[in-house]
Amino acid sequence: MSDLFDRHRPMLNDAVRALYARGYWTPFAEIPSEKLYGEGVKTRADADFAAQRNMGFDLPGHPESHRQGAEVSPFGPALGVVYPAADATVLIAAAKAAAPALATASVEARAGVCLEILTRLNRMSFLLGHATMHTTGQAFAMAFQAGGPHAQDRGLEAVAVAWEEMKRFPARAIWEKPQGKAAPLVIEKHWTLVPAGVALAIGCNTFPTWNSYPGIFASLATGNPVIVKPHPAAILPLALTVRIAREVLVEAGLPPDAILLAVDAPGAEITKDLATDPAVRIIDYTGSAAFGAWLRDNARQAQIFTEEAGVNSVVIAATDDFAGMCANLAFSLSLYSGQMCTAPQNIFVPEAGIDTDQGHMSFDAVAVGIVAAVDALLADPGRAAGVLGAIANPATLDRLTRMRETGRVLREATPGGEGRTVSPLILAVKAGNPAAEGECFGPVAFVVAAADADAGIADAARLATRRGAITAALYDTDEARIARAVAAFAVAGVNLSVNLTGNIFVNQSAAFSDFHVTGANPAGNASLTDPAFVAARFRRVMWRRPVAA
Amino acid sequence: MSDLFDRHRPMLNDAVRALYARGYWTPFAEIPSEKLYGEGVKTRADADFAAQRNMGFDLPGHPESHRQGAEVSPFGPALGVVYPAADATVLIAAAKAAAPALATASVEARAGVCLEILTRLNRMSFLLGHATMHTTGQAFAMAFQAGGPHAQDRGLEAVAVAWEEMKRFPARAIWEKPQGKAAPLVIEKHWTLVPAGVALAIGCNTFPTWNSYPGIFASLATGNPVIVKPHPAAILPLALTVRIAREVLVEAGLPPDAILLAVDAPGAEITKDLATDPAVRIIDYTGSAAFGAWLRDNARQAQIFTEEAGVNSVVIAATDDFAGMCANLAFSLSLYSGQMCTAPQNIFVPEAGIDTDQGHMSFDAVAVGIVAAVDALLADPGRAAGVLGAIANPATLDRLTRMRETGRVLREATPGGEGRTVSPLILAVKAGNPAAEGECFGPVAFVVAAADADAGIADAARLATRRGAITAALYDTDEARIARAVAAFAVAGVNLSVNLTGNIFVNQSAAFSDFHVTGANPAGNASLTDPAFVAARFRRVMWRRPVAA
Repeated sequence: MSDLFDRHRPMLNDAVRALYARGYWTPFAEIPSEKLYGEGVKTRADADFAAQRNMGFDLPGHPESHRQGAEVSPFGPALGVVYPAADATVLIAAAKAAAPALATASVEARAGVCLEILTRLNRMSFLLGHATMHTTGQAFAMAFQAGGPHAQDRGLEAVAVAWEEMKRFPARAIWEKPQGKAAPLVIEKHWTLVPAGVALAIGCNTFPTWNSYPGIFASLATGNPVIVKPHPAAILPLALTVRIAREVLVEAGLPPDAILLAVDAPGAEITKDLATDPAVRIIDYTGSAAFGAWLRDNARQAQIFTEEAGVNSVVIAATDDFAGMCANLAFSLSLYSGQMCTAPQNIFVPEAGIDTDQGHMSFDAVAVGIVAAVDALLADPGRAAGVLGAIANPATLDRLTRMRETGRVLREATPGGEGRTVSPLILAVKAGNPAAEGECFGPVAFVVAAADADAGIADAARLATRRGAITAALYDTDEARIARAVAAFAVAGVNLSVNLTGNIFVNQSAAFSDFHVTGANPAGNASLTDPAFVAARFRRVMWRRPVAA
Repeated sequence: MSDLFDRHRPMLNDAVRALYARGYWTPFAEIPSEKLYGEGVKTRADADFAAQRNMGFDLPGHPESHRQGAEVSPFGPALGVVYPAADATVLIAAAKAAAPALATASVEARAGVCLEILTRLNRMSFLLGHATMHTTGQAFAMAFQAGGPHAQDRGLEAVAVAWEEMKRFPARAIWEKPQGKAAPLVIEKHWTLVPAGVALAIGCNTFPTWNSYPGIFASLATGNPVIVKPHPAAILPLALTVRIAREVLVEAGLPPDAILLAVDAPGAEITKDLATDPAVRIIDYTGSAAFGAWLRDNARQAQIFTEEAGVNSVVIAATDDFAGMCANLAFSLSLYSGQMCTAPQNIFVPEAGIDTDQGHMSFDAVAVGIVAAVDALLADPGRAAGVLGAIANPATLDRLTRMRETGRVLREATPGGEGRTVSPLILAVKAGNPAAEGECFGPVAFVVAAADADAGIADAARLATRRGAITAALYDTDEARIARAVAAFAVAGVNLSVNLTGNIFVNQSAAFSDFHVTGANPAGNASLTDPAFVAARFRRVMWRRPVAA
C-alpha cells in the first residue's frame, strides 16, 4: 500500500506547497492534446465511449439488486447505459462493512490510494470528457477540462488539505510535568485518527465530477467510506470515477465498497433515504437551495457541506477598455449557456451611463455594447457551439420563455446547433425588478439600471447577502470606489474580480489558489477547499499512560 | 493596538510551539502562591471578593434595562451580587453594532487584545478562585486552578489555534499562468478574513470559565462579537471576565460591546431568544444533552459547538499496583464530588475477580479496596472538604437518594462539612443495570460486574458510543488486551488513560496537550481545541485583478 504513496509523494509534496503559495499550479494538463496525453488516446476514448453506449455498466462486486439508468444527452441521443443499483439500506450496510478496514489503513495508504485514483482518472480524461459532455451539455473542450483535469485538481487539492490536517499534530508525545524537587510526572500519549462515519456525496447535473471530487476525496483520504449519489441525469462521469476508485482500492488491499455508486431514477430518488440514515455522518451536496434546506432540516445527524444557488452580479462603474470589457463579459455570459454556478446574471449599470475609453456612454450604449459582443462571439456557428454547449435540463428552456416577459428584451435567446441549444437572453430591467432578485439559472442576463455605481455595488452586495453569490465582478477606474466595493463584497462573502478584460473570466476558479464559494453567504456553507471543509471529517482520540521511571 | 500584540508575541509563539509539540506547557502558574502571584495578592483578593458581595456589579457602558442576580454559594450564603441585564434584542443589537470594528481590526490587534485579557485575568486568579468556589462549589484550591490558570490555558490555546488558522495562508498572492509563447496571465489576489457573525457562549454551572473560555476567545480572536450567557447560578466568574475584556477592548480602541454579559434569572432564561436570533452564527454550549438537542433543533442558523453529557467508565482487568490503583480511583471519584465531566462513573470489574500484585482478588475484594481507599482519602475532615467541595445543584442531592435504591450499597453517601457537602455513594450492580446505563451526574459510582475484562471493555465502549463519554480508564497488565481496549475506545471516540496510579488522574485534561472531548460521540460535537473548533468561525473572501503587463 505504501508503494502507491511512495510513487505519488512528489505530487503530494508539490500540491501541499501549492496550497500555501496559492499561485498557479497543476499536475494535470488542461489541453486535450495527444502530445500531452499520449498518441492514440483520442481514438481510444471515442471507441470506449461508443462501446459503453447502450450497455450495462460493469462495476465488479458492487451491490446490485436491479439495473437503472436513463441518461439522455443534451445533444440528443439517449446514452442507454444501465448501472447496478441497490436500495439505500443495502448501500449503507456495504459502506459500514468497508469502514473498519478503511479507518485502520494508514494515512499514507489512504493518501496513496487517492493519488493513484486521481492519476488514473487523469489518464482517462478524454473518456471523462465525452461522459461529461453527454450528461451536462458542456461542449467537448470544456467538458474535458471541467470533467477531467480541473476536477482532478480539485480532488488533489482536497487530498492535500486532508493530508495537512491529519499530519498536523504528532501521533505520539511525551508530557512531562515538573514536580518541584520530586521526579516529574511523565505520560506518553498516542493519538488515533478516527473517521466520522459514512459519507454521502450528492452530485449535480452540470458539474458531476468537479463539484463532487472535493467531498469524495476529502472523505476517502480521512477514512470515511463514500456513497456517491449522482444526479440521475449525470451518472456516467461518476460511475467511471467509482469504477477506477474501486479498482485501486482492491489493488491496495482495501475493500472496494469504501466507495459505492447510488444510482436511482428521476422522480424515485433514494437521496433522502441515504441522507437521513443514522450511519451517514458527512454529506457533500451541490444543488438547489430548496433541497439544501431539506437536508439541514432532516439530516441533522450529519455534517453538511453545500454549494447551493446564488445571484452573481457585475457592476460596471467605468472602464478604460470598453471593448475588452464587453468581450470578456460576452464570454462569461455565453460559456456553457450561463449554467455555471459562477456565471454572472445581473449587470448593474448606472442609469446615467459610465465613463469609458470611448468617451461617456449611456446605459443603453453599454447594453448595446454587451449585446454586440455576445453576437460577435456567437456569430460563427462552430464557435457558438463550442462556447454555448447545450442545456442540461429542459426546465431551463421553459424558464427562458417566462423570463422574457420580465424586462425589455435587449437580445433574444435564439436556438441553434445540435440538441438543446440556445444563446443568451439579455433583458434590461430597473433596480429591484423581482425577476432579477432571485437566481434565474441558465442563459439569462439582466442589465440593471442602478442609481449610480455605488448603488449598484450596494445592490449587488445586498443580493449576495440575501440570496447568495459565488462571484462578483467590478469594472472601475476609481481606486477609492474599488476599495469600497472590495469591502462591501467581503462583508457579503463573495469573491470579487476587478477589471477582467483579457483571457481570464469571472467564472473561472482555480484549484490551489481560489477558494471556491466562501461559505459566508447562502450560496453555500463550505469552501473548496479550506481547512474547515476537512477538519471535522475525522477526530483525534488519545490513549495515554504513565512512563515508568 | 499592535503594542499589545508586540508585548505578548513571545507568549503566543510559545503557545503555538506547544500546540504542535503537545507536551507540558503553561505560562500561568497553577499553585495559589504569593511567591508566584505577588505579595499581598491573597489578602487583596479576599477583600475584593468581600467588597463585591451584596453589591451591584459595575460594567461601565454595558446595556442595562434592569438588574438581575440571585447566586447562592453552595457553601451557604447568597452572594447578593446584582448585574446589569438587558433583553436579548438589546444585546444582539449591541453586538451587531460592535461587529464591524472588531471585524476590520487586524488579526494582530485582536490577538493582542485576547492575550492582554488573559494576562490580566491571570493576575486576578485569586479573585476568580473565590468567585468560582462560591458559584460552583469547588474547594478553593481547585476553584483557583480550574477557574483561573487552567481556564486561562484553555483560552490561550484557543487564541493560538485561531492565530494559526488565520495566518495559515498568505493574505496576497500572484497567480501566473503560462500561455505558451504568449505573455502569461498574471492575476493578483487578496484575501480578507470575514468573521461568521455574532457568537453566543453558553456557560455551565460547574466550570463557568474553563468550559467557556475556548469559545469566547476563539470567537473574539477571529473577529466575532461574543455574548456571554452564564448559568444563572454561576455568573460572577464570567462577569469578572467580561469586565476585564471590555476594559482591554476600550484601551485598544475597540468597542467594548464586542463582549457582552447576558444575565437572566433561573426559570426566565433568555438563552433561547439569543440562540435563535438570525444574527447569532456561532454557539458554544456546555450543558445537558436535552438542551443541546434543543439547540440543534432550533438554532439551525448557527454553527453549534457542544460539550454535553456522558457515562465515563473505568475497566479493571488486572493491576500490579492494587493499592495505587485504589488510591488513584478514590481521588478521581471524590474530587469535586464527581461533578467533573471527566469523572468516572462506572467501574467494570470481572465477576470472577482480577489478578493483582496482592494475588487474585474477587469482585467484592476489589470493590472493598476502592471503598476503603475513598474512606481513607476522606477520613480527615479538612482534607475531605478540600477534595469534595460542595454540590453545585440541589437536584444532584435528590438524585443520590433515588440512586441508592438501584444497587447494592458498597459505600453510603455521607453529608458533612460546610454547605451542600456529601461524600460518594458507591453501589454494586450487574452489567446492564438501567441506572448505570445513563449519566448520574454527581458523587455516584457503580461497580459493575462484567462477565470478563473484554466484556467490560465492550460495555464501556458501547456506553460511550450510545450515551457519550469524555474519559475512560483501564487497569491491565496484558498488553494484547490493552491494545484491544485502545482500539475499542478509539472507535467509541473516547480518550483512554491506562494504569494511572500516581499523582495523575483520569479527570485531568491539560491544555496544549490533551484534546478535551473528541467530538466523536454524544458527549460533545467539538474538541478543545482542535482546528475544527476554530476553522469555520471566519471565512476567506478574495478580490483579484489582472496585473498590468
